Amino acid sequence: MERNTVTLFETIVTLLENKKYATLRDILSTMNPFDIAVIFEDIQDEKTAVLFRLLPKELAAEAFVEMEEETQQLLIHSFSDTELKEVIDELYVDDAVDLIEEMPANVVKRILRQADPDVRKQINEILKYPEDSAGSIMTTEFVKLRPKMTAEEAIKRIRRTGIDKETIYTCYVSDEHSTLIGIVTIKSLLLAEDDETIENLMETNVISVNTLDDQENVVQVFNKYNFLAVPVVDKENRLVGIITVDDAIDVMEEEATEDIQKVAAITPTTDKPYDKLSVLEIYKSRIPWLLILMISATFTGMIISSFEASLAASIVLTAFIPMLMGTGGNSGSQSSVTIIRSLSLGEIEFKDVFRVIFKESRVALLCGVTLSCANFVKMLLVDRMLLHNEEVTIMIALVVSLTIIATVFFAKIVGCVLPMVLAKIGFDPAVVASPFITTIMDALSLFVYFTIATSILHI
Amino acid sequence: MERNTVTLFETIVTLLENKKYATLRDILSTMNPFDIAVIFEDIQDEKTAVLFRLLPKELAAEAFVEMEEETQQLLIHSFSDTELKEVIDELYVDDAVDLIEEMPANVVKRILRQADPDVRKQINEILKYPEDSAGSIMTTEFVKLRPKMTAEEAIKRIRRTGIDKETIYTCYVSDEHSTLIGIVTIKSLLLAEDDETIENLMETNVISVNTLDDQENVVQVFNKYNFLAVPVVDKENRLVGIITVDDAIDVMEEEATEDIQKVAAITPTTDKPYDKLSVLEIYKSRIPWLLILMISATFTGMIISSFEASLAASIVLTAFIPMLMGTGGNSGSQSSVTIIRSLSLGEIEFKDVFRVIFKESRVALLCGVTLSCANFVKMLLVDRMLLHNEEVTIMIALVVSLTIIATVFFAKIVGCVLPMVLAKIGFDPAVVASPFITTIMDALSLFVYFTIATSILHI
Repeated sequence: MERNTVTLFETIVTLLENKKYATLRDILSTMNPFDIAVIFEDIQDEKTAVLFRLLPKELAAEAFVEMEEETQQLLIHSFSDTELKEVIDELYVDDAVDLIEEMPANVVKRILRQADPDVRKQINEILKYPEDSAGSIMTTEFVKLRPKMTAEEAIKRIRRTGIDKETIYTCYVSDEHSTLIGIVTIKSLLLAEDDETIENLMETNVISVNTLDDQENVVQVFNKYNFLAVPVVDKENRLVGIITVDDAIDVMEEEATEDIQKVAAITPTTDKPYDKLSVLEIYKSRIPWLLILMISATFTGMIISSFEASLAASIVLTAFIPMLMGTGGNSGSQSSVTIIRSLSLGEIEFKDVFRVIFKESRVALLCGVTLSCANFVKMLLVDRMLLHNEEVTIMIALVVSLTIIATVFFAKIVGCVLPMVLAKIGFDPAVVASPFITTIMDALSLFVYFTIATSILHI
Repeated sequence: MERNTVTLFETIVTLLENKKYATLRDILSTMNPFDIAVIFEDIQDEKTAVLFRLLPKELAAEAFVEMEEETQQLLIHSFSDTELKEVIDELYVDDAVDLIEEMPANVVKRILRQADPDVRKQINEILKYPEDSAGSIMTTEFVKLRPKMTAEEAIKRIRRTGIDKETIYTCYVSDEHSTLIGIVTIKSLLLAEDDETIENLMETNVISVNTLDDQENVVQVFNKYNFLAVPVVDKENRLVGIITVDDAIDVMEEEATEDIQKVAAITPTTDKPYDKLSVLEIYKSRIPWLLILMISATFTGMIISSFEASLAASIVLTAFIPMLMGTGGNSGSQSSVTIIRSLSLGEIEFKDVFRVIFKESRVALLCGVTLSCANFVKMLLVDRMLLHNEEVTIMIALVVSLTIIATVFFAKIVGCVLPMVLAKIGFDPAVVASPFITTIMDALSLFVYFTIATSILHI
């Protein structure tokens, strides 16, 4: 597929240079919006407008939605007002909102001026909802049916009005107050008798989301129920929009990427792909965490300094600091990341905290004892006998091995409790994941290490 | 929504105890398969079969698919052969395959014995495909149309046969050799004139996946093209099945969870939710990595041992080991996780490696210099002046600050190159992410630290 895109691209460039517009139009008409958008990213800037004008209207709008911000801006600048109006008219309302959120103020003004008054009103409604809320990602274009209609009438209505709707596969039934009372799929309409009423065909136990719900909740609904679209209602249970599965998928990928970034101590800033991010943008998303984590390591430094005398007396202890800190950090990350993912998939809640602690503490004991024994054997066999490090005595091996048990235990408990508590009090648990737990564990494991060492070795 | 489920659950338990089966049947009939499955997880084992028999046939099968493995097994054991056959007949083929993959051998035998010969054949076909391939997650139930049909005939055909198909929203057009030649959506069928032929209505530039494609590629197709289903073809381009968007979503969540787990050094084993995993299962998924990482820390220990004399001469150097190792590890993870995610979303490929290195090295220099300056100031102001640590001299601050620049630079380069190279030679880059890069960086940063220290401080 990749290879095809490349050769096709060269053909298109040649045809464009030779002004073979009719041929180009034929080729483009057979292509998918996404693949067309890819081509627009790679052709020369001054050719984009020419190529865009060759696209059939609907396809042009669909491809436009898939393009990168820069290309969209470039095209909008080259559009006449009439052309801009044509594109805006073809866009689904939620795509128009996405576009407006990305464009600079002067372009936004021009877009809104060209939009139909009705569309402009809908766009402004959606723009009012907070970022990442269900309202902000919904579309207001869906098929509305009345309970007294027959299946035949409903199908007729869909055939008449469906062309402008984002999905016709699920239709929404509302009463005279716009209250959502049921949904009916086109599958059940098609499979029903012509004179069956919507009232009898519709599902009345409808799952919906609220306009102010977080988009993560929306994703959880799609995960649970395998819907193609979910209705969005306001506080009075009035139907105001729908969210389709393709938009839910975008949110899913965005949230997963954000979770992964946070685990690695990166501030999620934009949804741009890596190769579109500038060096400065990457720098800005990474440096705050590196600075915070570097400064917070001062505490570990202070702990080491305060035990400096003991360390000087038994310098061999230094050699095991990296291993102990690493083991503590890794054990803690395993727990915290597992818990964070379970929280965000809705598998566990705060009320499960004691069950989670009980489970993690048993896992911690098993892991701790295994690692401790392996380490004891390793230190005596490898470090002492194989590498002839005479400083590694049985007592030293004992100190290190006992520290491992304590460290792994604390790490797993901190790793599971911290994210749950943070989520409970309204923080994003993913932000504090690995790196912070690593910092806490670094300090904790050093403290445990030196305490055990001074009491057992009497230094 | 959560609260509703709880109270409803209590009502259902009471009704079940009082044997109010008619009322129960009415309640269950209005519910979603997922919510019914949740109830089955929580009721007493001996009541499950009674409750299940109250469900209407189709809903029973849909709820059965959503249940946990243990509950499914429990139910199958309580089924008569006729009951089992009824459930299997109602299942979509891909769900039947999922079920069979999870059940023990004796249950599988019983299921296959009860399945229709035709269904059994389809199940066996799908079972032949390798795990995580497109073939293994597809269904063989879809609407097939012929190019010469009219829109009216097609709609009639869908109304006649559609009830057993997993989706009727996209229909697939094949010629006499079963070669996939086009797709047509029900939307375009409904909006077309009655006597329009399928040939004229269908899209001929069809995106499809191959039976042997990895399921990650399937997810990328859904991400790009906003499809509700994608056709699966064999090597001869014959249409053998389809994958629907709900199954793609499951794969998406599974892959994202796996990526997050691997970043935290956890072996992804099962797709069970956290609260269904036993302590031993969790232990097994975590201990191998903890052991490997603990043992690999031997190298860092060896580096420290070999510079023990220098350390003893300037013991204050020890206090900055945790900070240096942490900064190196964090810098490396940031790069590796970003690259791993971009690779798995298809944003970058191996051919981009030099562009990526160039970008990362500029980011690394910016980060390194910032951190280095901040550290220099911090060591002199905080450690020396505020905490009165007289051992922290300007030369020591210089050694630590220079080490930071070098460490951050190496960390970012290793962090971006390693995942790309591993992906190129066919390994899973996520497996080696943070923890391994942390281990490599621990060793590297210590080596750089002591080398700079011995040459500047002449110890």
